[in-house]
Amino acid sequence: MTYCVGVLVEEGLVMVADTRTNAGLDDISTYRKLHHFNVPGERVMMLASAGNLSITQSVLSMLQEGVPGEEDDEPPQKLVEAPTMFQAAQLIGRAIRRVRAIEKDGFEAANIRFSISLLFGGQIGNGEMRLYLIYSAGNFIECSTDAPFLQIGEHKYGKPILDRAVRYTTELYDALKVSLVSMDSTMRSNLGVGLPIDIALVRRNALTLEVNHRIEAGEGYFHDLRERWSAALRAAHRAIPRPPYGPADK
Amino acid sequence: MTYCVGVLVEEGLVMVADTRTNAGLDDISTYRKLHHFNVPGERVMMLASAGNLSITQSVLSMLQEGVPGEEDDEPPQKLVEAPTMFQAAQLIGRAIRRVRAIEKDGFEAANIRFSISLLFGGQIGNGEMRLYLIYSAGNFIECSTDAPFLQIGEHKYGKPILDRAVRYTTELYDALKVSLVSMDSTMRSNLGVGLPIDIALVRRNALTLEVNHRIEAGEGYFHDLRERWSAALRAAHRAIPRPPYGPADK
Repeated sequence: MTYCVGVLVEEGLVMVADTRTNAGLDDISTYRKLHHFNVPGERVMMLASAGNLSITQSVLSMLQEGVPGEEDDEPPQKLVEAPTMFQAAQLIGRAIRRVRAIEKDGFEAANIRFSISLLFGGQIGNGEMRLYLIYSAGNFIECSTDAPFLQIGEHKYGKPILDRAVRYTTELYDALKVSLVSMDSTMRSNLGVGLPIDIALVRRNALTLEVNHRIEAGEGYFHDLRERWSAALRAAHRAIPRPPYGPADK
Repeated sequence: MTYCVGVLVEEGLVMVADTRTNAGLDDISTYRKLHHFNVPGERVMMLASAGNLSITQSVLSMLQEGVPGEEDDEPPQKLVEAPTMFQAAQLIGRAIRRVRAIEKDGFEAANIRFSISLLFGGQIGNGEMRLYLIYSAGNFIECSTDAPFLQIGEHKYGKPILDRAVRYTTELYDALKVSLVSMDSTMRSNLGVGLPIDIALVRRNALTLEVNHRIEAGEGYFHDLRERWSAALRAAHRAIPRPPYGPADK
């Protein structure tokens, strides 16, 4: 399994992704799922992936080497050459459709579902900072200011805290903190999501990564965050009065 | 959607179920999903249902009127006649298989999935108090003391708090309180789960319901619980120090 979350607030963008992949419970590995396509001062783009690893890797490689054009005379285009975030998201969608066209027959023969989802966020030049969720069909949606986060993979365990704690006006490092709490909730309820965790943080208009860090098992801050959160939850439900409901009325 | 949770602790059993059913987002109704089969002093049994409403209602009616025997000379048996909780769970499994045999062709023709899951808990006479999760195939699992709760329906949003806060030694009314917090988390993240909520509480060896209550919209205690929980979560993540991660190393 995978869990990745992106939060786009007023001050900037945070992305957090786990690194655990599994082909069955007895075949677990660590793979980076959070990728950067940066030209400092010109653009900063991040792509987090969930789904079939062979598909996500092929899509990434195609975005690095150049996605073939849809017309014969159209030259291949690399992700770092896209002029706007919207056109970059379109290019990713095209790469997904290309990979599907190549793999379709083999996947059908082996009865494997073509499954991929991507979070794509960043900023190019003076353009708006954007965060997109791109689906298996290559179509995509954009993050809104009303619900300023998007998730892929095993998203339900970590959603309640985001629903409650993240607003468009939330400060950037608080958004990172809440994303880590959301990741912790997911890791605790689904063993298929695990450490290390990759995190990235970009301030609006900075056009370069302010944080690009991997949290390894046993790291002090994250360990402390998990302990404090657990203790706070226990204290929180203890502080609520007991239900007043009495003996049955029938 | 549906969310039901059962918690079996040392002191007894709690069951909580929402009441919202929907055939599409534009066709939402209120149906009781938590049912009682009680003979005070002799037995107390509770059944919470998720899945296709026509199936769950047919299974319930069959359990009330009598499930046909599997052999021709075997008389129909009612749920309230089962001699032990294990045999009662087996009888429910048989009822599900019976309904499936009746509905199978029609469901296949209409391309409807035969989907049902049930939480079944209670105690008969001097027997052990039990809590079972019964699947569409009629097979079932039993709740353990290591993880003293079972859930059906939209279970992921409400699982993190149960994982953290419920132990076999948790007091009975605390188990009810945490179940209500779990229900609140689910209702907040999935609009298909909603008020009113039915709750039931049985003390071990009491053989009668101690609480049998419906929480309606606007009820003071539940409203207060939701507010306090929200406030506590906000305070909890604010109390965690900010991430110490600095400018990117690349």
